[in-house]
Amino acid sequence: MMLPTCRIKIINGNTCQPMTANINASAQAVKFPHTEIVTVHPQTGPESIESFYDEYLAIPGILEQIILDADSDAFILACWGDPGLEAAREITSKPVVGIAEASLYMANMLAAKWSVVTTLHRVRDMVEKTIQKTGLTERCASVRTTTLAVLDTEQDRTATLKVLIEASQLAIKADGAEAICLGCAGMSGLEQQLEDHLGVPVIDAVAAAVKMAESLVSLGKTTSKRLTYRFPELKTIKGYKPHFQAKNF
Amino acid sequence: MMLPTCRIKIINGNTCQPMTANINASAQAVKFPHTEIVTVHPQTGPESIESFYDEYLAIPGILEQIILDADSDAFILACWGDPGLEAAREITSKPVVGIAEASLYMANMLAAKWSVVTTLHRVRDMVEKTIQKTGLTERCASVRTTTLAVLDTEQDRTATLKVLIEASQLAIKADGAEAICLGCAGMSGLEQQLEDHLGVPVIDAVAAAVKMAESLVSLGKTTSKRLTYRFPELKTIKGYKPHFQAKNF
Amino acid sequence: MMLPTCRIKIINGNTCQPMTANINASAQAVKFPHTEIVTVHPQTGPESIESFYDEYLAIPGILEQIILDADSDAFILACWGDPGLEAAREITSKPVVGIAEASLYMANMLAAKWSVVTTLHRVRDMVEKTIQKTGLTERCASVRTTTLAVLDTEQDRTATLKVLIEASQLAIKADGAEAICLGCAGMSGLEQQLEDHLGVPVIDAVAAAVKMAESLVSLGKTTSKRLTYRFPELKTIKGYKPHFQAKNF
Amino acid sequence: MMLPTCRIKIINGNTCQPMTANINASAQAVKFPHTEIVTVHPQTGPESIESFYDEYLAIPGILEQIILDADSDAFILACWGDPGLEAAREITSKPVVGIAEASLYMANMLAAKWSVVTTLHRVRDMVEKTIQKTGLTERCASVRTTTLAVLDTEQDRTATLKVLIEASQLAIKADGAEAICLGCAGMSGLEQQLEDHLGVPVIDAVAAAVKMAESLVSLGKTTSKRLTYRFPELKTIKGYKPHFQAKNF
Amino acid sequence: MMLPTCRIKIINGNTCQPMTANINASAQAVKFPHTEIVTVHPQTGPESIESFYDEYLAIPGILEQIILDADSDAFILACWGDPGLEAAREITSKPVVGIAEASLYMANMLAAKWSVVTTLHRVRDMVEKTIQKTGLTERCASVRTTTLAVLDTEQDRTATLKVLIEASQLAIKADGAEAICLGCAGMSGLEQQLEDHLGVPVIDAVAAAVKMAESLVSLGKTTSKRLTYRFPELKTIKGYKPHFQAKNF
Amino acid sequence: MMLPTCRIKIINGNTCQPMTANINASAQAVKFPHTEIVTVHPQTGPESIESFYDEYLAIPGILEQIILDADSDAFILACWGDPGLEAAREITSKPVVGIAEASLYMANMLAAKWSVVTTLHRVRDMVEKTIQKTGLTERCASVRTTTLAVLDTEQDRTATLKVLIEASQLAIKADGAEAICLGCAGMSGLEQQLEDHLGVPVIDAVAAAVKMAESLVSLGKTTSKRLTYRFPELKTIKGYKPHFQAKNF
Repeated sequence: MMLPTCRIKIINGNTCQPMTANINASAQAVKFPHTEIVTVHPQTGPESIESFYDEYLAIPGILEQIILDADSDAFILACWGDPGLEAAREITSKPVVGIAEASLYMANMLAAKWSVVTTLHRVRDMVEKTIQKTGLTERCASVRTTTLAVLDTEQDRTATLKVLIEASQLAIKADGAEAICLGCAGMSGLEQQLEDHLGVPVIDAVAAAVKMAESLVSLGKTTSKRLTYRFPELKTIKGYKPHFQAKNF
Repeated sequence: MMLPTCRIKIINGNTCQPMTANINASAQAVKFPHTEIVTVHPQTGPESIESFYDEYLAIPGILEQIILDADSDAFILACWGDPGLEAAREITSKPVVGIAEASLYMANMLAAKWSVVTTLHRVRDMVEKTIQKTGLTERCASVRTTTLAVLDTEQDRTATLKVLIEASQLAIKADGAEAICLGCAGMSGLEQQLEDHLGVPVIDAVAAAVKMAESLVSLGKTTSKRLTYRFPELKTIKGYKPHFQAKNF
Repeated sequence: MMLPTCRIKIINGNTCQPMTANINASAQAVKFPHTEIVTVHPQTGPESIESFYDEYLAIPGILEQIILDADSDAFILACWGDPGLEAAREITSKPVVGIAEASLYMANMLAAKWSVVTTLHRVRDMVEKTIQKTGLTERCASVRTTTLAVLDTEQDRTATLKVLIEASQLAIKADGAEAICLGCAGMSGLEQQLEDHLGVPVIDAVAAAVKMAESLVSLGKTTSKRLTYRFPELKTIKGYKPHFQAKNF
Repeated sequence: MMLPTCRIKIINGNTCQPMTANINASAQAVKFPHTEIVTVHPQTGPESIESFYDEYLAIPGILEQIILDADSDAFILACWGDPGLEAAREITSKPVVGIAEASLYMANMLAAKWSVVTTLHRVRDMVEKTIQKTGLTERCASVRTTTLAVLDTEQDRTATLKVLIEASQLAIKADGAEAICLGCAGMSGLEQQLEDHLGVPVIDAVAAAVKMAESLVSLGKTTSKRLTYRFPELKTIKGYKPHFQAKNF
Repeated sequence: MMLPTCRIKIINGNTCQPMTANINASAQAVKFPHTEIVTVHPQTGPESIESFYDEYLAIPGILEQIILDADSDAFILACWGDPGLEAAREITSKPVVGIAEASLYMANMLAAKWSVVTTLHRVRDMVEKTIQKTGLTERCASVRTTTLAVLDTEQDRTATLKVLIEASQLAIKADGAEAICLGCAGMSGLEQQLEDHLGVPVIDAVAAAVKMAESLVSLGKTTSKRLTYRFPELKTIKGYKPHFQAKNF
Repeated sequence: MMLPTCRIKIINGNTCQPMTANINASAQAVKFPHTEIVTVHPQTGPESIESFYDEYLAIPGILEQIILDADSDAFILACWGDPGLEAAREITSKPVVGIAEASLYMANMLAAKWSVVTTLHRVRDMVEKTIQKTGLTERCASVRTTTLAVLDTEQDRTATLKVLIEASQLAIKADGAEAICLGCAGMSGLEQQLEDHLGVPVIDAVAAAVKMAESLVSLGKTTSKRLTYRFPELKTIKGYKPHFQAKNF
């Protein structure tokens, strides 16, 4: 049987081209043959997301990538924090997967307790809120933040790996983690080295999301339009291009 | 003793001028004499907020009202949902009060259990998430959504009152609410009529927030810059005016 | 690129052959081409699982199907209740997916709130405990039990569909469900008819689990052996065949 | 506009006159000009509250200060633990504010996570229960108890400050607190020195409660008499003065 | 083997002699032969407890019954609400059992979910807080309040039984209760008739507490004096008789 | 008054005869004179329970001990983890008590916070799930696992005591435990030495369960057959002896 092509659009949450390339490489490496991956980043927004401010400025551009798309079968929001996820589900009936939630589901199937290892200390509250929105707080052993800025994760892979190993080992030994979720799309591609070093499953969130999106498309599932994720009401929206109007979706 | 003037800027979350006027009237009516209230709305964003999509498109414009401000002693986010509240706290050290949280604190001091009565059914999930972020889910008797669009609340006050009375009575009789929080800034000004009718405290969120902001300014309190609400890191932000750069705050 | 074959063994939790056949049909219908599905049932245990007693008598036979297997790349426990899931993860390092958890993760990606519609009223507590173990209680709108015995679901598909429609409509209208999880492997195959009728996503747990297992195998993930899911200690076990001894795994 | 006078009665929970004086000084320093503050302590009860036993013996005397009052517009219970708060709300329809809850609401508006720094180690359970009654347990980073007896806090301010600094620094560094709530009325007046030293917001609970009470009075709010806080039923009460009878309120 | 006598003092929480007699009768009927039961009520406090106000006025008199006692091996607080339980545990090292907690533990061993059926509607919040303090909120199907005043339960047993049957049937049919806890000491003695009528276990809280107290004494267990339940600090206590001073315990 | 004999059957969860003897000795030492204790172990299953796998293999044999019993008035499941507790309650209407739950109820009456000190590190997740099923997670200060295998606890009492002292002291000093629950039936008999050493209540779970069972029998209580714990449906069960059929109970 030939599978129909499944086209997945991955939207890097920030406007940093090298990270888009890295995410794309990770996704291409794990996709099934019948899947076509297109990885983009927004035309507007910060080059990295490390604060609530960054996140909120990124979201309109992220949503625009869905609005302007006519061909994809599913969307992936590739920023750990799943920025704008609920809104994305409102403006399309195609499945939308956040990399954070995808990685947590996968961790939940491999370990009794897991930790999220991530970037700057200041994002702790954001990460905790993301886990809570997904609903899996009870299974989380800890959130381990580090001194890594998002862009650092791309630029110095050796140093990044070293910091991730240290933080993960603390999560395992002090907090009882039995698996590690990498809490930033920029860390994608380091999971195998980490896993080899740590001896516990390490989840790359981008890879996890590709699999979840392929799964949903394969089953023909679409987002519920029953209530919360209905298409937005038609209304005047100032200062945004016309395609942001609901009637144009 | 003469009190120094306390300047509070209220930011209506949406771009609907009549609602800005209504919010302003409510705020002016309850402020202390030494308080100066300025009510604005964003230059960009939807005319009403009734979905996650609306909310995320509104936030950059809301934040801009803080960034461009040099004189205010405190800010109020006047949209029940407290859109962008964490980001607002990052970009200023002045106190920022969300009208949702303010109304919940006030309800908590007047009643053992309270309900939130609000607009369209589709916002239930948004409202529940707002309550959960504030931390007060356990004290909430119920969220009662209605058929009221946000702009309806301004345009037909009689019909709005009628719908609010019905929903509130259900909250009181069926859900055990002992006070009512009005879950939309557009309902501001109806609280007294409702309270007279229902016989339980009815909290106007705008009024509650004005009092909280006056309180914080009066005590000289500022937002913690210790970790979560630090000023955002300096970085390139595409597609936004220069004043959105962190260095320009 | 040719994908290496992925062999997934699905273990129907009970000893009812027609249900095994039905589960197998559902799984074969949704698997990717490179996946090979083998569906079995235990050699010991009850013909249906409708009580904690049934479940506990079924588990040794379920585990035996893993112990005796040398070739599979992943296992699926096909009984909503995920019976023996933690033990299954102890006795193999291959991924083990429960159909209950798989369906909940999938529902979580499609809807803000979902309900589980299932068999006899007496299983309510079992179902609630299953959801709680997965960690997703907060996202659950309701558990709707019915008058359907497990074996009924196989024998009279028309009547089963009718009961499921009624229960699902109550979940949607009274409880706020925006998607439905079918809470019994015997209901597998009815999801499309139900979805067409209800207008909200309906998740077949068997299909969801096949996709999750394919995903985990595709990424090369294995169960964490760090602590909770370590192989059992070697010890004398009375009254079980020799292959139940840990040294023989 | 001249504001009508707002008369607030603050009830120090214990019978220690110097603490009453200290509380009064703090309150007078932060009140608005139109507010009149009267600070009292009960005629019966322990000189300090450091156990559940102390607290329960204090409550009748605290309530008596409300019963005997005819003129106040609001009441403040000035003991962190908000002793008798629900009963106080039953016996008057005037707003009653507990200093614990007031400080937590204020902390919630200034920081993502806060800690309570308080007196003797034995009060940990009392403090945790107080936070839980308010509903804000999830926002609490930690409770840090010390070797400070309540009366110590008044008598040796330098030593008290030193202990509070140490405990607060642990809360900030080890527990992730981004603001500090002073968990005893006796610590009132030290908040500014602490804040200067620590660099995070420090909330004096007495000051916070004065602002909350002024706010509620200013908005004309009264306690809900719908159910939980109804006036007590009329009945025989042995061993208490006649004014404790409900008919005499 | 002859068992040493176990002397248990039951303290009716209110000052209503007929209820003391009824409680005593229930306790005498279920005690083991070697147990000696003495049932008393406080010398001060309200004749019934139906509000937080009543409860707080009752507690000093309840505690006095422990302070003045030299001979008992254990104490039972016989008012559903366990008034002053933590303080009681501070002032003695003998075991202290609350009838509410005792009944919940017993219900937990007999049923997956149980409801509390109790007196006036206004006590709902008190009852919910009692359950939460014990820690068993998750196992509670519902709290069903009624029109029964506490003293009614003693005076018209037929009418009381009728009301309890109605409320219990609602709890069973609408809320999923599988056992009923009688939420007032005044209902003691009706459990068998109710159980016969309803067909589910009905727990008399007084009987449950007698058994728990006998159990603790039999095992030689005493209250932990490690931290929370230490004896109160010695201090001046105004307006109470000298035996209330900690040094006199 | 002569009490009728109360016959309690204690079922050691594993097939280790010396542990059965030890459990029996502990039970005989604390039972009331009118109680008759019979302690058995299953005919099938592992010699010790230290994993989910061990637990699930033990349960059929545990349940068989109830099925084959005609004379007992109550059953005790003597393995901390309460293996098969819900199923046991389905197959008899006699009270069934788990030693884990019994010990937690008792701890709850003696201390504000308690810890469970138990065997191998790998059982942490099992122990946490047991506490959560009982409903008392919030009162738990910590779970302290050790290097003790279950059979070690019987074989080297001196070494076992040493390890328990160390773990308990950590629970008390680092985690705030005010009482200790011994989390393994094999530790039964060490509680008094531990209590003498630690100065806080130490609960032997077997003794606690004997008291709970005596209490339930004495009050004539039986398990609710309303819904969850109904007798199992009659059905074919393969590979089990005929007495496992529901019709033969």
